[in-house]
Amino acid sequence: MSNSYGKLFRITTFGESHGPAVGVIVDGCPAGLDISHEEIQHALDRRRPGQSDITTPRNEDDKVTILSGVFEGKTTGTPIALAVNNRDQHSHDYSHIQHAFRPSHADYTYTAKYGTRDYRGGGRSSARETVARVAAGALAIKLLQKYGISVNAYVSQVGKVKLRKHYTKLDLSKIDANKVRCPDGKTAARMIGVVEEARDNLDTIGGVVSCVIQGVPAGLGEPVFDKLHAELGKAMLSINAVKGFEYGSGFEGVSMRGSEHNDQFYTDEAGNVRTRTNNSGGIQGGISNGQDIYFNVAFKPVATILQPQQTINDAGEDITLKGKGRHDPCVLPRAVPIVDAMAALVIADFIMRQQANKV
Amino acid sequence: MSNSYGKLFRITTFGESHGPAVGVIVDGCPAGLDISHEEIQHALDRRRPGQSDITTPRNEDDKVTILSGVFEGKTTGTPIALAVNNRDQHSHDYSHIQHAFRPSHADYTYTAKYGTRDYRGGGRSSARETVARVAAGALAIKLLQKYGISVNAYVSQVGKVKLRKHYTKLDLSKIDANKVRCPDGKTAARMIGVVEEARDNLDTIGGVVSCVIQGVPAGLGEPVFDKLHAELGKAMLSINAVKGFEYGSGFEGVSMRGSEHNDQFYTDEAGNVRTRTNNSGGIQGGISNGQDIYFNVAFKPVATILQPQQTINDAGEDITLKGKGRHDPCVLPRAVPIVDAMAALVIADFIMRQQANKV
Amino acid sequence: MSNSYGKLFRITTFGESHGPAVGVIVDGCPAGLDISHEEIQHALDRRRPGQSDITTPRNEDDKVTILSGVFEGKTTGTPIALAVNNRDQHSHDYSHIQHAFRPSHADYTYTAKYGTRDYRGGGRSSARETVARVAAGALAIKLLQKYGISVNAYVSQVGKVKLRKHYTKLDLSKIDANKVRCPDGKTAARMIGVVEEARDNLDTIGGVVSCVIQGVPAGLGEPVFDKLHAELGKAMLSINAVKGFEYGSGFEGVSMRGSEHNDQFYTDEAGNVRTRTNNSGGIQGGISNGQDIYFNVAFKPVATILQPQQTINDAGEDITLKGKGRHDPCVLPRAVPIVDAMAALVIADFIMRQQANKV
Amino acid sequence: MSNSYGKLFRITTFGESHGPAVGVIVDGCPAGLDISHEEIQHALDRRRPGQSDITTPRNEDDKVTILSGVFEGKTTGTPIALAVNNRDQHSHDYSHIQHAFRPSHADYTYTAKYGTRDYRGGGRSSARETVARVAAGALAIKLLQKYGISVNAYVSQVGKVKLRKHYTKLDLSKIDANKVRCPDGKTAARMIGVVEEARDNLDTIGGVVSCVIQGVPAGLGEPVFDKLHAELGKAMLSINAVKGFEYGSGFEGVSMRGSEHNDQFYTDEAGNVRTRTNNSGGIQGGISNGQDIYFNVAFKPVATILQPQQTINDAGEDITLKGKGRHDPCVLPRAVPIVDAMAALVIADFIMRQQANKV
Repeated sequence: MSNSYGKLFRITTFGESHGPAVGVIVDGCPAGLDISHEEIQHALDRRRPGQSDITTPRNEDDKVTILSGVFEGKTTGTPIALAVNNRDQHSHDYSHIQHAFRPSHADYTYTAKYGTRDYRGGGRSSARETVARVAAGALAIKLLQKYGISVNAYVSQVGKVKLRKHYTKLDLSKIDANKVRCPDGKTAARMIGVVEEARDNLDTIGGVVSCVIQGVPAGLGEPVFDKLHAELGKAMLSINAVKGFEYGSGFEGVSMRGSEHNDQFYTDEAGNVRTRTNNSGGIQGGISNGQDIYFNVAFKPVATILQPQQTINDAGEDITLKGKGRHDPCVLPRAVPIVDAMAALVIADFIMRQQANKV
Repeated sequence: MSNSYGKLFRITTFGESHGPAVGVIVDGCPAGLDISHEEIQHALDRRRPGQSDITTPRNEDDKVTILSGVFEGKTTGTPIALAVNNRDQHSHDYSHIQHAFRPSHADYTYTAKYGTRDYRGGGRSSARETVARVAAGALAIKLLQKYGISVNAYVSQVGKVKLRKHYTKLDLSKIDANKVRCPDGKTAARMIGVVEEARDNLDTIGGVVSCVIQGVPAGLGEPVFDKLHAELGKAMLSINAVKGFEYGSGFEGVSMRGSEHNDQFYTDEAGNVRTRTNNSGGIQGGISNGQDIYFNVAFKPVATILQPQQTINDAGEDITLKGKGRHDPCVLPRAVPIVDAMAALVIADFIMRQQANKV
Repeated sequence: MSNSYGKLFRITTFGESHGPAVGVIVDGCPAGLDISHEEIQHALDRRRPGQSDITTPRNEDDKVTILSGVFEGKTTGTPIALAVNNRDQHSHDYSHIQHAFRPSHADYTYTAKYGTRDYRGGGRSSARETVARVAAGALAIKLLQKYGISVNAYVSQVGKVKLRKHYTKLDLSKIDANKVRCPDGKTAARMIGVVEEARDNLDTIGGVVSCVIQGVPAGLGEPVFDKLHAELGKAMLSINAVKGFEYGSGFEGVSMRGSEHNDQFYTDEAGNVRTRTNNSGGIQGGISNGQDIYFNVAFKPVATILQPQQTINDAGEDITLKGKGRHDPCVLPRAVPIVDAMAALVIADFIMRQQANKV
Repeated sequence: MSNSYGKLFRITTFGESHGPAVGVIVDGCPAGLDISHEEIQHALDRRRPGQSDITTPRNEDDKVTILSGVFEGKTTGTPIALAVNNRDQHSHDYSHIQHAFRPSHADYTYTAKYGTRDYRGGGRSSARETVARVAAGALAIKLLQKYGISVNAYVSQVGKVKLRKHYTKLDLSKIDANKVRCPDGKTAARMIGVVEEARDNLDTIGGVVSCVIQGVPAGLGEPVFDKLHAELGKAMLSINAVKGFEYGSGFEGVSMRGSEHNDQFYTDEAGNVRTRTNNSGGIQGGISNGQDIYFNVAFKPVATILQPQQTINDAGEDITLKGKGRHDPCVLPRAVPIVDAMAALVIADFIMRQQANKV
C-alpha cells in the first residue's frame, strides 16, 4: 500500500513502463471544478519524452483518457481515473537486462523485496510512473488556481552550473522559454551545454530543481508530523532520482546565528502580516505564514548510461553490462512538471485538511 | 489528525510545553518484546534539558511512566502509553509573550490556523513534544536490536565547524563521549567553542546531525510514494527546527556524472551482494539494498534569543520583544536522540510492512 | 494499529482493565470548542460501574483528568489527552483464570494472536476500554450540539422483553429516568425484572440498544466504502459484546416489496425536502438525506457468569472454571452511553469530512 | 477519499454506470501469486447482468482487462489495475430522470452532497461499481486458497421465504446449481417463485445473503476498533442495498442467557482447540478462534420499480416518475459474488496485518 499519496486529495497510481498503460485514480477532488482534457494533456506534454534534443529521443505522445469522475466538463466529486496507454510495449528486447542488476537501478532491490521483478525496462521503478503524477497534478493545479495559488518549478542547477539569482529576481513566466527550463536565458544556455557534453560522452548529469509557491494563505500545514515542509519533502523525495530537499534557508542556514536568521514580523500598508526576511521559506512551525514558500530538490545523475559497466547478474556472477537504448542524459528539464505536480498535490491536500477544521 | 506517525508501528503524541504532561501511545508494537522502564528513561535522559552547560540550564528530570501495554516486562501487543509529567507548569509568567508574535516561532501561524493558541511557552509547537518521540523511539530501537540493526546519529556540523571525516572513519561508540555529541574529539571541542560563543553573545547557532543506520536487510521501503528515504526525510523534517534532508551523495551528488555516481555491484567472499561505492546511501528505488544507510539533517539556529527583537503583537502593532528565560543556544546535542528515535521508528515500521508482504 | 477510530476526528485509546490507567487521545477536534471537565465526567458517570443494583456492584468513580489540548476552557486544535486511573489495580487475585480460557471470552484468541496475554481481568479485551470512548465521545457530542444534532440511544430490548413502540412515540428525555435506560416506564419495569431474574440465577442476559440521531443535515457520509451506515455499523460492532447492526427497515425490510419500501419525497411547507416514510433510516446511497437516522444494535449476554463452566486451560486440559467476582448481569444499561459516544464520533468525523469538500 | 478499502490489501475503485469504464487498483497484493485472466473473468461472470431470467435482462459481457501488476502469470507486488469497459454508455435517454429525485435512490443525497450529480443511470451510486469489487475479490480469493480458506456466500432468504437449515446441513458446492444461488433446491424453487411474482407485478423484493468462511486460523482480526466482525460488517454494509449485518448468534442471541450462549472450549482428538457450540460465529473479542465464521447480510428490495411513483424534481415540485428500463427484480442472486468478494478482501487484509505482527 504505497502507491497512494495524500490524505483528502488522494491519488493512487498504477502501471509499469512496459505494461499496457499507466494511470491514476484521483479520489477526493472536490466537485464542481472545471477541467478539460486539454489542461491535463498540456501538463503531460511538458513531461513527455522526445520533447527536445536534450531529453530522450524516444518519442511517445502520452495521450490521456479520462475514464471517470468528470461529467459535462466538471468534476463530480467521485473518483477521477486517468489512463495513458504505453506504446509499443511488446516491441523491445530486454534479454540483456533480464538477469542483470543494473548499477544504481532498482533491479536488485525489487528482486530482494518481491522475489521477482518485471525486467522490461524498469517495470514499476521506471520514472514512467510519474506520468500518473503529472496527470493528477493538473487537477490539483486547477484547484489551486481557484485560491490564487501558483506553483513554479524551474531548473536552478545542472552539474556545476548554478543559477545564482534569487527567485525574486527571475521572470517565472520564462520557465518554458528554453528547453532546459531555467528562466534565466544565459544560465540556461550554459546548462544546455553541460547536458550536451554529458550526452555526447555517453554519460549523464544531475542537478537541482527549485520551486516557488505563491499565494498560499497563512494556516496550511499541520503541526507535529504532517508539517507542510515535511509533506513537501516527502513528496519530492518520492520522485525518482531525488537525493535531497531543503526549504527556506536550508543547509546554508545552519551556519547562521539566530539573530540573523529570525524573520521579523511587520504589518504592511494593506494591514497584512509580513516578514522582512524569509529564511523561514514561508513556513513556521510546519504551518504556512502567508509568505512565499520556496525549496530546492536535488536530482542525481540518471543511472542509465550508454557506457559499459561492471556489475553482477541475479546468480551473483560478475558481468559487463552494455549500455543501449534511448535515455535522458539529464532528467532535470522533464522533472520540472513533476515537481510542479507533487507540490500542487501537497498544497491541495492541505487546503482540504484546513477546510475540515473550519467546522 | 497530524499527531500520529507510522503505518503499522504507529505513534500518537500529545501534550504541550506547559500542560500537565506530554506523552505518547505506541500502537502496533509487536508482542513479546522485552522492555524495561530504564531503557525508555535512558533515551529520555539523553534528551533532557539541563544535561550540560551548552544546553538550556532549565533542569527537568523527565521521568517516564508506563501506563499500559507492558506486562511482566514484555510488550503485550496492545497500545503502550507513556507519559512524562511537566514540572512547574503553572509557575511562570507569560505575559510578555501572550500577545506577541515571536520572530520565526509558530505563534503567528498557530493563531492563523486555529484562531487561538496556548501562549504558555510554545504550547504544542514547543520542542517539548519530542519527549514523546524519544520515549516511543526507545521501543523501536529495542525492536531493531532483535534484527541486528543499529542507529547512530551524531553532530557533524555546528555553525561553520564541519566534521570532514566520513562516518566510516569515526568511532560511533564515542558519540556520547562529549557534551556536543560529535564522535571526533577535536572537532567536538571546536563545536563546543562555537556554541559557547553563541551563548555568551545571547545568540543561537544551527548545525547538522548525521545519522548512520547499519544492518538493515535488503528489501525495506516501499516503491513509489513511501520510499524508504522519503519516509526518513519526512520523519526528520517533522522535527522542530529542521530545514533540510539529504541522503547518500545528497546535494553534492548533483554535479557528478552518472558514470562516477553509479554504485557497482559485486559479490563479496561470503556471497553477499555489495556495492563498491555507496553514493546510493543504502537505498535504490526507495528500497534498502543492504548497504549502510546514511543521511544529513539541517537544523536552523534556535529562534528564541535573549536579545531584544522587533516584531508585532496580535493587534498588528510594532513591539520590541525582550528575550528572557532559559533556552538552548544550540539544539544539536539534544537533537541527536530525537534523530535516533525518528530513524528507528521509520525502520521499525518498514520492517513490519515488509513482514506483511511475506504471506 | 487498531486502537484508533475516525479519519479526521480521530481517537486513539489505551489501557487495560488492571493497568494504571485507561485513556484516549482525541486528535483532530476543532479548535475553539467550549468543553468543561464536568461535561466529560457526566458522560463517564452514565457509564460507570456500581451505578445501580442491576449493574456490577463493583464501585469505581472513574474520575477523568484532562492532560492536554484544552486551554482556558476551550479546545486549542491540538490533541486532547484524557486519562482515568484504574483503582486497586493490584489488589485482586487472578490465579483462577491465569491459565484458563474462559468460554466466549477473548482469552484464547488473544493468546493465539499475541502469544501472550495480560490475564488480569480481560486486560485489553475488557469493556473497561470503553471508558476512553465515552470520554472522547463527550467532545464529539459537544461538537454536534453546535450543529443542532442530537444522539439518543436507549434500551429497546432485554432478553425477550421488547419495546414495541416506534421511537417517534417515545419521550427521549426520559431515557435516564430509570436504571435500565428504556424511556417507556412500563417496559422498563419488565426489563428490570428480566435482569434481576438473570442476576439472581447467577446468569446474564442480552438485549438491544436502539439509537436515534436527529438534526443531521443532508450530505453527510461518503459514497462507496465509507457509507454513513457502514461506518455506524463498524463503530457499533466494535463495541464489546455486539453481534449485529441494522438501520432503517433493517432485517424486517427484506420481506417488503420495493413499492412498499420506497420512501416518497415531498417538499414540506417550509420548503424542505422530506420523505413520507423513512424505511431508509435517514440514509440513501450511504449519504444522509436529512431525515432521522435510526438503528439497532444487538448485544449478546455477558460471558462472565457466576456459575461453574467446563472449559480448557492453556495446556489444552479440561477444567471446571468457577465463576466469581462482581460483574454485570446485563450490559445494556451501561452500553447506552457507549452507543451514544460512538455514534457521535462517527457523525463528528463525517461533518469534518464533508466540510473538507467545501473548498 | 472513500473509494478505497483495506489497510494492507487495499483496493481503490473508480467508474460510474455510464462512463467509459469501471475498474479498480489493487495495491498491496503480495508478489508471486498465480492469477489468470480467466479466474478474474469467472468471478465477474457470476455477477454479470443478464445471466438468468430472474435478473435484469440487460445483457453485458463485462470483459476484464489487466492493465498492470501481473507479469508472466504472477503478481509482481506492484499495483494491479483492472478495468471493464461499459458498453453503449452513450446510447440511452435519461431525460426522464435528469431532474427527478427517484424514491430511495441516491439522486437527492448526491445532489445535496456534491451540488451536482451524474444523472445517467445512478452514476457512481449505481451497483455497477461492484464490478470493481468482484474483480479485486478474485485476487483475494486466490490468496485465501493458499491458506486453505474458503468463502461461501449463498441466498438464505427471499421475501418471506427463508432457508431454515443451518449451513452445516447444506451442500455448499451446490450454490451455483440454480439461478437464485440457494444451495437447497426446494427452497430455491420457492425463492424463484417469489422473484418471478415480484417481477411480474413490476415490483421488487429483498432478501438475505448468508456467508460461511472456513479454514480461518485463530488470531486474525484486531482488538478494539478493527475487530474482525466489525470490518466484515462495514464491508457488507458498504454494498449497495444492504440494511443489516449480524454474525454468529446475531439478533437472536440477545434473548439467550449467558449460560446458554457461551461456547465451551475443548481439545479435539487432533489436539486442536475447538468449541462445542459456535454462537460466537468464529470470533471472540474481535479475533478469529479457528471455528467457522458465519454471518447474515440483509438486502432491501431494489428501489427501481417499473411502476409509476410520486416524488419531486430538483426544483422541489411534485412529479410522477414512470418506471422504465431493464432492472433486477431482486438483487440477491447477483449479490452473492459481491459478498464473497468483500468477505475475501477483509480476510486477506487481516492475514497480512497478522503477518506484520510476526516480526
